[in-house]
Amino acid sequence: MQKNLHVSVLLDFYGEMLTQNQRALVGHYYNDDLSLAEIAQHEGITRQGVRDTIKRAEIQMFEMEERLGFIKKHREIDSALEQIRAAMTEIAEFNLRYGCSREINERAKMVYELTERLN
Amino acid sequence: MQKNLHVSVLLDFYGEMLTQNQRALVGHYYNDDLSLAEIAQHEGITRQGVRDTIKRAEIQMFEMEERLGFIKKHREIDSALEQIRAAMTEIAEFNLRYGCSREINERAKMVYELTERLN
Repeated sequence: MQKNLHVSVLLDFYGEMLTQNQRALVGHYYNDDLSLAEIAQHEGITRQGVRDTIKRAEIQMFEMEERLGFIKKHREIDSALEQIRAAMTEIAEFNLRYGCSREINERAKMVYELTERLN
Repeated sequence: MQKNLHVSVLLDFYGEMLTQNQRALVGHYYNDDLSLAEIAQHEGITRQGVRDTIKRAEIQMFEMEERLGFIKKHREIDSALEQIRAAMTEIAEFNLRYGCSREINERAKMVYELTERLN
């Protein structure tokens, strides 16, 4: 079982749909970086039991993302926001450097259209 | 059973987590505006059967929003984007009217900070 970093993200988004027990074991494994053996000892269950519980939880969360796509959507928004910030920085710079300029209007227009596509 | 408009939104966000049958019945009732009796006739099941299926699907979707909060988050983003657009419009207006101005920098700064809080 290879630790998959993406599972931490799945846990952030979909962890609340898991049982408390699933959430705890997945969290120990992916966020607290414990081994299956360490978790098994800590929980008083078998290593195989820990592995099965984590695997089942992972599959459930992957399927939720397949169906709902909230992580994908979140990344699109994040990427858009990054562009917005970059544009804002440029607006401020052009404003300082050249005074009222064509570039300012172009940036403002681009940002406006970007946020409309986000809706 | 009162038709709840919010259920259409729940269906948009969480419909993919329902069974095909649940999704169809909830869609007929809330999106196609059919009555329970009409759906029952169309599906060849009892009115009570339709009602129970829809009610169960509603509860599942409400619980998912309670746990995951994606609609709430989406509304926050929407509201932020609306503010971004308003600010962009103002930037363009100030730019046209007064040339390089303090207001342009203030708007750009506000937008920048707003999008940082969104992350």
